[in-house]
Amino acid sequence: MALHHHEAPLKNDVFLRALAREPTEYTPVWLMRQAGRYLPEYNATRAKAGSFLKLAKTPELACEVTLQPLERFPLDAAILFSDILTIPDAMGLGLYFAEGEGPRFERPLRDEAAVRKLAAPDPAAELRYVTDAVRTTRRALGDRVPLIGFSGSPYTLACYMVEGSGSDDWRVLKEMLYSRPDLLHRILAVNAEAVAAYLNAQIEAGAQAVMIFDTWGGNLTAAGYEEFSLAYMRKVIAKVRGAPCIVFTKGAGNWLEAIAASGCNAVGLDWTIAPADARRRIGAKVALQGNLDPAALAAAPDAVRAEARRVLDAFGVAPGHIFNLGHGISPNARVDSVAALVDEVRTYSKKMRSRTG
Amino acid sequence: MALHHHEAPLKNDVFLRALAREPTEYTPVWLMRQAGRYLPEYNATRAKAGSFLKLAKTPELACEVTLQPLERFPLDAAILFSDILTIPDAMGLGLYFAEGEGPRFERPLRDEAAVRKLAAPDPAAELRYVTDAVRTTRRALGDRVPLIGFSGSPYTLACYMVEGSGSDDWRVLKEMLYSRPDLLHRILAVNAEAVAAYLNAQIEAGAQAVMIFDTWGGNLTAAGYEEFSLAYMRKVIAKVRGAPCIVFTKGAGNWLEAIAASGCNAVGLDWTIAPADARRRIGAKVALQGNLDPAALAAAPDAVRAEARRVLDAFGVAPGHIFNLGHGISPNARVDSVAALVDEVRTYSKKMRSRTG
Repeated sequence: MALHHHEAPLKNDVFLRALAREPTEYTPVWLMRQAGRYLPEYNATRAKAGSFLKLAKTPELACEVTLQPLERFPLDAAILFSDILTIPDAMGLGLYFAEGEGPRFERPLRDEAAVRKLAAPDPAAELRYVTDAVRTTRRALGDRVPLIGFSGSPYTLACYMVEGSGSDDWRVLKEMLYSRPDLLHRILAVNAEAVAAYLNAQIEAGAQAVMIFDTWGGNLTAAGYEEFSLAYMRKVIAKVRGAPCIVFTKGAGNWLEAIAASGCNAVGLDWTIAPADARRRIGAKVALQGNLDPAALAAAPDAVRAEARRVLDAFGVAPGHIFNLGHGISPNARVDSVAALVDEVRTYSKKMRSRTG
Repeated sequence: MALHHHEAPLKNDVFLRALAREPTEYTPVWLMRQAGRYLPEYNATRAKAGSFLKLAKTPELACEVTLQPLERFPLDAAILFSDILTIPDAMGLGLYFAEGEGPRFERPLRDEAAVRKLAAPDPAAELRYVTDAVRTTRRALGDRVPLIGFSGSPYTLACYMVEGSGSDDWRVLKEMLYSRPDLLHRILAVNAEAVAAYLNAQIEAGAQAVMIFDTWGGNLTAAGYEEFSLAYMRKVIAKVRGAPCIVFTKGAGNWLEAIAASGCNAVGLDWTIAPADARRRIGAKVALQGNLDPAALAAAPDAVRAEARRVLDAFGVAPGHIFNLGHGISPNARVDSVAALVDEVRTYSKKMRSRTG
């Protein structure tokens, strides 16, 4: 039986209630990549670990950095510290990080034989360090706030698996997409199976919500997004059991209606989308999460508070808004401005409710 | 009197008629960055010039590469070979290109004094090489197809002028935007004046249409796009005289209605926007230009022909579609696939009209 079945009820379940579109006394807030390089204590733990991957693969250290932002700021959720590319690493592609660069794979999927050999990993074996980190973190969190698990989307995983690294134009991936769509579909089918099993394993281990990060779905055409990204996220969502699911595609403003109809419980919005437009187009079918421009956090606290109020006003007090950034927090975010943001969201969103209530 | 007033009527004015939303016998096509590194003859001329900037600043060589794609493919328009950052270079910021990297400025706008000193250049002096290139190219083109002039948008110019180079997150620019919006507005006001004078100078020299490239407007929030990019493009459009104007913001799917209402004659669409959605949202007020995924041109001719038909079918036969890519052509585009694309657009769009006509 999963650990969370023994737990006392949460002291702070505002995030989960907003996710269920129930009324809340204020707007809950957490920040994508909230355990990150803008925090000196994160950098200290990372230095102790020796590398980013060692940090992600050591449950005690992953737990330690997951909790760090909660010690500083009254956030309404924790998100497991991990990497979006754990699945292809477990598939044997050899994830590594060159100094000062993004993720790379030693063995990207460059030919048909490699694609044919691809198989979904067993989360209880190759990804055991992730479920161990979930269990350790749930124990350390106690009944404070919910823990969010996550995975890269099938398409976003495929982008890195085929390209071998991040890219401005994803030319290797796109060449496969246009020349051998059958191979890409085979990768995506395996990835969808792997992502579903992985998210369910995280839920079994104690994650109380899960999020699918489709960081690169926005590089597709409208038809391509449906065919290569959303179709496979729908398969994942249909298999996820026991926790609500948030879907976030960066650059997905054109396709919000389709994402909201995917079966997910919430849609993450990047900062380019006007919240009122999103609500008008999506209606009240799902919760919305977002969408402060992460770059604003390099500004001083007062400017950040003003931006936070702008975002809150734009979403309004209707149930089902979770405050977040429109993308991951940047290493140059000011810690005092992050503190101001979290405080402003709490106090201003309470005020909004008292005005209208 | 401008040179083009003496010219014979164009043999091929299909592009200009589509821009005016008049019926045409087929869908005109040109490709953003059609004179580019995918063409061996372009690389030869660039090698002869010694550098990209020398090529752009030498009217005879700029003319030579502008005409190269027209010798290979029956394109319906030429676009002046130049750089989007000629204006800040003429303002004294010192444009240069490090080998294998994007554009950089020696003297980016990093303090208030630099911003205060900024002034719009005189297109007849510091940018004379551009108007000379327009005149030379018009003479060489004769009455074949129209010549398009262009500029970066006020905001996109400001991105590079403040950041000093391209960026994934534009953190220096965004810090100014959130901390000192007054400084950014001062830069944008000067840029808008400069861009309008520059486009009018190109029109005077013979450009028969102009295009504003807002490559980075898509990094803004919805409110920020209105305030920092679109407001200044509107100022430019209001001052442009004597030629139709196309506006292209990459990543602008969320804001199409506002762009279409800017006073422009056509809206450029990136590849993420479903053409039918764009037409439904914009109506018949302006022409639409786009929007094949540029990455498709790395695939074989048959795959490219199929994608071209998909785009043409999605736009339909209503007047006012100019076929193009959704962004600039990539160096890894296959020349045989570009040829197939241009051929397919011509033949298939004729067929579409005969079916419905």
